[in-house]
Amino acid sequence: MCRWLAYSGSPILIEELLYKPRYSLIDQSMHSRMGVETTNGDGVGVGWYGVDGPPEPTLFRGVGPAWGDVNLRELGRSISSSLFLAHIRASTGTAVQQTNCHPFRFGRWLWQHNGSIREFARLKRDLVLAVDPAFYPSIAGSTDSEVMFHLALTFGLEDDPVRAVERMAGFVESVARRHGVPDPLQMTVATTDGERLWAFRYSSQRESRSLFVNTAVSALRELYPDNENLHRLSDETRIVVSEPLGELPGAWQPVPESSWGIVVKGGDRLGPFRPLER
Amino acid sequence: MCRWLAYSGSPILIEELLYKPRYSLIDQSMHSRMGVETTNGDGVGVGWYGVDGPPEPTLFRGVGPAWGDVNLRELGRSISSSLFLAHIRASTGTAVQQTNCHPFRFGRWLWQHNGSIREFARLKRDLVLAVDPAFYPSIAGSTDSEVMFHLALTFGLEDDPVRAVERMAGFVESVARRHGVPDPLQMTVATTDGERLWAFRYSSQRESRSLFVNTAVSALRELYPDNENLHRLSDETRIVVSEPLGELPGAWQPVPESSWGIVVKGGDRLGPFRPLER
Amino acid sequence: MCRWLAYSGSPILIEELLYKPRYSLIDQSMHSRMGVETTNGDGVGVGWYGVDGPPEPTLFRGVGPAWGDVNLRELGRSISSSLFLAHIRASTGTAVQQTNCHPFRFGRWLWQHNGSIREFARLKRDLVLAVDPAFYPSIAGSTDSEVMFHLALTFGLEDDPVRAVERMAGFVESVARRHGVPDPLQMTVATTDGERLWAFRYSSQRESRSLFVNTAVSALRELYPDNENLHRLSDETRIVVSEPLGELPGAWQPVPESSWGIVVKGGDRLGPFRPLER
Amino acid sequence: MCRWLAYSGSPILIEELLYKPRYSLIDQSMHSRMGVETTNGDGVGVGWYGVDGPPEPTLFRGVGPAWGDVNLRELGRSISSSLFLAHIRASTGTAVQQTNCHPFRFGRWLWQHNGSIREFARLKRDLVLAVDPAFYPSIAGSTDSEVMFHLALTFGLEDDPVRAVERMAGFVESVARRHGVPDPLQMTVATTDGERLWAFRYSSQRESRSLFVNTAVSALRELYPDNENLHRLSDETRIVVSEPLGELPGAWQPVPESSWGIVVKGGDRLGPFRPLER
Repeated sequence: MCRWLAYSGSPILIEELLYKPRYSLIDQSMHSRMGVETTNGDGVGVGWYGVDGPPEPTLFRGVGPAWGDVNLRELGRSISSSLFLAHIRASTGTAVQQTNCHPFRFGRWLWQHNGSIREFARLKRDLVLAVDPAFYPSIAGSTDSEVMFHLALTFGLEDDPVRAVERMAGFVESVARRHGVPDPLQMTVATTDGERLWAFRYSSQRESRSLFVNTAVSALRELYPDNENLHRLSDETRIVVSEPLGELPGAWQPVPESSWGIVVKGGDRLGPFRPLER
Repeated sequence: MCRWLAYSGSPILIEELLYKPRYSLIDQSMHSRMGVETTNGDGVGVGWYGVDGPPEPTLFRGVGPAWGDVNLRELGRSISSSLFLAHIRASTGTAVQQTNCHPFRFGRWLWQHNGSIREFARLKRDLVLAVDPAFYPSIAGSTDSEVMFHLALTFGLEDDPVRAVERMAGFVESVARRHGVPDPLQMTVATTDGERLWAFRYSSQRESRSLFVNTAVSALRELYPDNENLHRLSDETRIVVSEPLGELPGAWQPVPESSWGIVVKGGDRLGPFRPLER
Repeated sequence: MCRWLAYSGSPILIEELLYKPRYSLIDQSMHSRMGVETTNGDGVGVGWYGVDGPPEPTLFRGVGPAWGDVNLRELGRSISSSLFLAHIRASTGTAVQQTNCHPFRFGRWLWQHNGSIREFARLKRDLVLAVDPAFYPSIAGSTDSEVMFHLALTFGLEDDPVRAVERMAGFVESVARRHGVPDPLQMTVATTDGERLWAFRYSSQRESRSLFVNTAVSALRELYPDNENLHRLSDETRIVVSEPLGELPGAWQPVPESSWGIVVKGGDRLGPFRPLER
Repeated sequence: MCRWLAYSGSPILIEELLYKPRYSLIDQSMHSRMGVETTNGDGVGVGWYGVDGPPEPTLFRGVGPAWGDVNLRELGRSISSSLFLAHIRASTGTAVQQTNCHPFRFGRWLWQHNGSIREFARLKRDLVLAVDPAFYPSIAGSTDSEVMFHLALTFGLEDDPVRAVERMAGFVESVARRHGVPDPLQMTVATTDGERLWAFRYSSQRESRSLFVNTAVSALRELYPDNENLHRLSDETRIVVSEPLGELPGAWQPVPESSWGIVVKGGDRLGPFRPLER
């Protein structure tokens, strides 16, 4: 399994979330407290949209453990972004290689995943066959996560992300059923087109991996008027993350089981996640 | 493109062929003289059958340039084998990663390839779909070479290697024709089950990459009675290689265009390679 | 800190100790139970003397986490040795790179270390200056461990290993004292010339990292007549290891605090370790 | 040997110089036309000062060949800088590892080098001993280039760069003389504090590696009024590079043998380089 973080808000140095918090994502690479594994040392990736950069996000992906990635530490200190995804990997069997590091990218879209498809090696062929030939050539690695992304693209991610991910989940479950694989899907997913950010928490057996979102910063500031960290964060800050980054009571809300959320200017939304078989 | 070497004979230290000759395979990684590229720096691999080891071959594969691979140099000095394949890679577009390094293995079989399938990204889906579901899960990387191996397995490599590779070539060419891709296949291939060694030289346009085999050692010894290197090689030595390892006149014979060869105890065989569309 | 293992006995496949035991060294790379860190993911190395190979040991060293090193797994299955060292690294600050992976080699000698020199960056210059110019050029990395090895070589490791290591420890402590660094040395060390194996357990504050040696196999066989694993081990088997490889009661003896041990044909020896300032 | 590039001018995407020119630095990593080796595949590095970033430069350094570094390609597309150094490495013997990749950094300073110190392994100890203990701990790798940087720091690089580098060269030559090593130094060097840029071309035997600087952009625009690339470059553009990036006649001037140059607002300067023995 893995751990991930998604940020949307005013421009912030990447290290502010990846390195500085007590239980930062990099800390979680060696000492995850809620993950299936305490160690997430099979690669790391960050995808960010530049403040003045190209419309497409930039990727940095390293195959070594996040805790020792010197380049990432350098970039964290110098790159600011108002929207970025970050991921640390614990392989569930597929190779440790850059093409298997999250986030994955297609055009302006990014995708990252914690979880797995049970018995993926057995189901993979049927899943891959369902990927639209237009998207197929962009599959570069060998993970279940990247296939899920391309299935979601096939099912309309760019037009209606919630529905596309629900169809992807329903399709995975139907293929698994056909192969006699029970409870196949376990996932928390973040995806974004550079403007909006979607998060999903779901598993076939309804015991999904942990996922949290920060409490509204304005409310936290009232609660902790002396906390300087909070004053550095803008009101519209949204951090979605596999595990809380710190221990400030009240700062983190669990994302409900089987749900989706959208972070967007003018009001976030939350809804129930229901796998669709068309 | 790439460069490769296949050895069959008495047990020999791997470095004798990978490092010591004037134009050794490692030398070719930086200074190939007959390759499409002078540099073959996108990974290296060796697969060997142990003298007393397990029946399955052992693989060592590194993602850095062969010339700088410290582990390979160490292994070359200490591992002897009477049958091994070695390969240096120059990527034709797919990622530089261990799962893309040759040789590839399935059970007791090894496979390595120099060449490419033209417009592989466009043809890949149709090619992969034809791989038998029993072999599909063992595709770990993203190269054309590994798909060719799994197609050959699908077409009966373990039973009749020449026919299986001919069917693979015919299938690739028929898929390419359907997509309007001319002259799709360029290949020199070595494959082995640990007892026999097959080599193939073929390209759709009949202008195949170079491939050579050593002249019979007994004949060479008569020609060069004072050459000590020749006295270290046994009579049954067969070295098949993309480029000659040295400049000894008469030592290397080009493998004919569009042909296959089998190295086996009791007499090698050579025949014409004809792509089969069943 | 790190974890290591040293084996002397009849030839054995390396994987028998690195992969197969319940708490194998590879398992310890992610789940060390007695180490300062549970994770030892900053590189791995094995140095072995071949059954028929060159007199110098062969090294394999990888910079990624041991648990994911595909080449090591391959070698483990095919290489047998009657004397080898293996090490998994948890960096105490110096770079994650091959030249910092243990074991280190000089001629026929291997050396591996768990522990550290406190404030090494501050003491390093004085320590390195004391290395004999004849040994200095063979320092290839940046670790305290490699400097300790070269100090021991300077102080006569090849002639009188126990005394040389005692002088090295005494020298480190005297340099530290001069710089006002208290309790500078923490070490368990294994070193070998390919025939004999020395192990050391020492720390300036007399609270050394854990170190164990297996109970005599003959005694264990009497205790556990039905245990098949024990019947695969020869009587002269010696395994020295940072943590027990399993939970068999009585199978592992702690090496005493501040001591050295020699594994040699005709009877092991044990003695008290006393840092020497000449 | 190696190849490098230094840029000072208006902010520019890094890829404009590293990837886009016909003979870009990345192209030179595989096809250097003037280097000692055609291949410079032993690592790559870029150090840049951010437009709004921290005063210290940011480093990205990769150990694989530059031509295949996916992260570098990503960064090249999204990072702009008005002052950066870039380097591709061809090892002259020391390990291929991140700590040996240029540029090297100390505080606000960057340093990169093409060339070598002859018989460095033999001279290294005496050279390193002369490094000021205050700078010694920041030596992280094992190259001659990094030692040269730390000697220059010791000799006052931060105060009087030209004089410091001249003293460094004189010191290297005097140590070499003592050891009987003739013509020890071969170097082109770029160094910068983030405001000014110094370049050096020197070798003990006065046959230094190639180094070029672009002709004044205003003059080139008059010469080539229709060349759009030239209109994207500002007047104060200075590109110092081991080999010309293209074939535009008149666009590149060789830096004279045994000279130094300073790029600084208000007028560049050039002078003769004379090794100093104090």
